[in-house]
Amino acid sequence: MQDKLREHIEKVILLSDEEFAFISAHFTVKKFKKHQFIIQKGDAVKYSYFVVSGLLKLVHTDDSGKEHIISFAMEDWWESDYYAFYTQTEATLSLECLEDTEVLGLTFENYRKLCDGLQKMERFFLEKSNFGFLGAQRRILSLITSNAKERYEQLLKRYPSLFQRVPKSLIAAYLGVSRETLSRFSR
Amino acid sequence: MQDKLREHIEKVILLSDEEFAFISAHFTVKKFKKHQFIIQKGDAVKYSYFVVSGLLKLVHTDDSGKEHIISFAMEDWWESDYYAFYTQTEATLSLECLEDTEVLGLTFENYRKLCDGLQKMERFFLEKSNFGFLGAQRRILSLITSNAKERYEQLLKRYPSLFQRVPKSLIAAYLGVSRETLSRFSR
Repeated sequence: MQDKLREHIEKVILLSDEEFAFISAHFTVKKFKKHQFIIQKGDAVKYSYFVVSGLLKLVHTDDSGKEHIISFAMEDWWESDYYAFYTQTEATLSLECLEDTEVLGLTFENYRKLCDGLQKMERFFLEKSNFGFLGAQRRILSLITSNAKERYEQLLKRYPSLFQRVPKSLIAAYLGVSRETLSRFSR
Repeated sequence: MQDKLREHIEKVILLSDEEFAFISAHFTVKKFKKHQFIIQKGDAVKYSYFVVSGLLKLVHTDDSGKEHIISFAMEDWWESDYYAFYTQTEATLSLECLEDTEVLGLTFENYRKLCDGLQKMERFFLEKSNFGFLGAQRRILSLITSNAKERYEQLLKRYPSLFQRVPKSLIAAYLGVSRETLSRFSR
């Protein structure tokens, strides 16, 4: 599991064995079963999660109980309720496993310790954050310029493996269309 | 102008006079007139801009020539075509002044020099990037869970001053509704 983390970080910064040992000691291995909640609305959000294997959905549930999927996260992605994580407040979102999932969890305190202890890690998190922002901006652009069918095609092109792993009903919830509308797109 | 930058950065990290002098030397003052383009689609994107005074719109123009407003930026905001800035590629967006505008421009090279030369600045940019990501995620959530009237009310509540400064036609373009629909909301 630690190998995957090292490989992931080294796409951005190169590390000595000593540096990686320092980094690795700040993470906690956690394993969850399919359908298990990693974060539930109202929880304290203790960790930011690096996904080693498995698949997650980050969900906002509205007042009427309807689920809106903000994002999916799979191998090599980071996920959490980041507003709650950064501000150390209660979760307003939930994070649920769509498959058996292994993650490496980083507490907010350890996130700060990594940044303070090794400037390279601050660079790493800055790069991840900048590209996370660009991904979110791309999604905003897609939501304001494209119709549901175009968004479906963009998603299929960008993340073909999602369509093998995620039930169609959840793809529909992510795109904001009904299950029936989605069926028409995928014929 | 530099005072505003110092005040802005010191909301995140405290600086000595020497540190601020070092930082300040990496920025270039630029002044633009209302309606002037700071970035045009196809340009090399040389700078990230800190807005000292004025108001900007970041725009995606689709194949049919229709303008979609990704964001407005006013005093104390940073703006650029960040995909093009971080990857040092050509602009796909345009950035235009809605008022006479003064900015402090930071080249990509100087952004790197600031991060390398003063770890505090890497911390500052990491904080800005994290909160930029959260702002983008909030907008995604608003786009997938709220109708146009609700988005209008959220915008009015969060940025009341926008409604004094921005023509109604642009508020409509930001919300993705027609000018007529917007008039119905604001009655």
